[in-house]
Amino acid sequence: MNQLEVCFSPELIHLHELEGKIVVVVDIFRATSTMVAALANGIEEIETFADLETCRTMKQKGYLIAGERNGQTVEGFDLGNSPVALLDNSFSGQKLAMTTTNGTLAISKSEGASEILIGAFPNLSATVKYIQNQKKDVLIHCAGWKGRFNLEDSLYAGALAKALESTHESSDDGAMAMKSLFEKEGHQLKKYLSQASHAKRLQNHGIEKDIDFCLTFDLYELVGKVEGQVLRAIFL
Amino acid sequence: MNQLEVCFSPELIHLHELEGKIVVVVDIFRATSTMVAALANGIEEIETFADLETCRTMKQKGYLIAGERNGQTVEGFDLGNSPVALLDNSFSGQKLAMTTTNGTLAISKSEGASEILIGAFPNLSATVKYIQNQKKDVLIHCAGWKGRFNLEDSLYAGALAKALESTHESSDDGAMAMKSLFEKEGHQLKKYLSQASHAKRLQNHGIEKDIDFCLTFDLYELVGKVEGQVLRAIFL
Repeated sequence: MNQLEVCFSPELIHLHELEGKIVVVVDIFRATSTMVAALANGIEEIETFADLETCRTMKQKGYLIAGERNGQTVEGFDLGNSPVALLDNSFSGQKLAMTTTNGTLAISKSEGASEILIGAFPNLSATVKYIQNQKKDVLIHCAGWKGRFNLEDSLYAGALAKALESTHESSDDGAMAMKSLFEKEGHQLKKYLSQASHAKRLQNHGIEKDIDFCLTFDLYELVGKVEGQVLRAIFL
Repeated sequence: MNQLEVCFSPELIHLHELEGKIVVVVDIFRATSTMVAALANGIEEIETFADLETCRTMKQKGYLIAGERNGQTVEGFDLGNSPVALLDNSFSGQKLAMTTTNGTLAISKSEGASEILIGAFPNLSATVKYIQNQKKDVLIHCAGWKGRFNLEDSLYAGALAKALESTHESSDDGAMAMKSLFEKEGHQLKKYLSQASHAKRLQNHGIEKDIDFCLTFDLYELVGKVEGQVLRAIFL
């Protein structure tokens, strides 16, 4: 069996060994869900940036630029962080530069891993299939919310731990706990998460459709993989 | 309703506001369980120390000294970190100086709170009763394991969140998650935790009786409260 562990915050990632592992970065509401939506709808590649101003300069290089802070689209950007805005293939063939509150940080702090993938519910089973072909240990790196534990990223970790249990043992307490929690609450994910702090914040922004999308399983047969600074799709 | 939140590691405590809150520090295996056992068996007061050598100097001041590192009693110390060693009142009337891997750090990092309590299963209901008389917000500060999430401290947080739910709303995602997990696994705590990383480590040290004690509910009607550097019992 390979091993699977969970890190609940980029502020704790220094306590984990990354070398040789597949790190799955997850920021369900909404960065990594948006990335998966973009790749499934024709975006050729995505670059992520920790700060807004660097991201903004990518406009001149012909990129679409997407950025949110605290759940709102930044002025002057083409897009915010809404997966639904990307669903009709209208940006097909373009390159996307994006920056978000938590997700970009988690990606940049995953450097040193053997592979870095992007996790989201709409491509969960594809990610499982890809990982099971690699035969490596897995670390799920939750982006969290301003450094703190959040429920939607952690429950994705539980869902992935559960889906991988035939090949990957939940080897730390975080993985065990979240696998149990997903077993209990996974059948009513949207209802359960509606009480979570970040979902409440998003509801205030009126983006019900985004939440529905982010919590839908297995729409796409693709994996999102970061190489160097660039995220691309691997179509299975 | 008052609010209740959970911090899973001393490495994340800077992300939480402590002022005005009751902070409950929890290190189930075994520091805070041992503290509660000590206070219930006649130890008059306990001082905690982050480092071994300062703790050792307390011997000359007439204190019993207790210390473990990585689950083992330190050479030259009267006691390790076993609650069972304190159960027969044989140290009644004495003062105890102790240092442990994770628990002491969590206590020292809780400074600034309105009150600091020590949490353990053997005095859970007493702690609930005391908190409900104070009408303050609660933050449960899990000692964790070398900075990482651990299951036994987090499940205690879930148990306390559950027991306080008539007066305290689980106001962050950590509290929500752990309350759910305790609802699922609380009826078989020992069996469930036997898979946890730290319990496995402890089993290797042959301290089954300590584990049983640490997971027993409501033996004592006392609360452990830290004031200044000193922990004393409040008998209800």
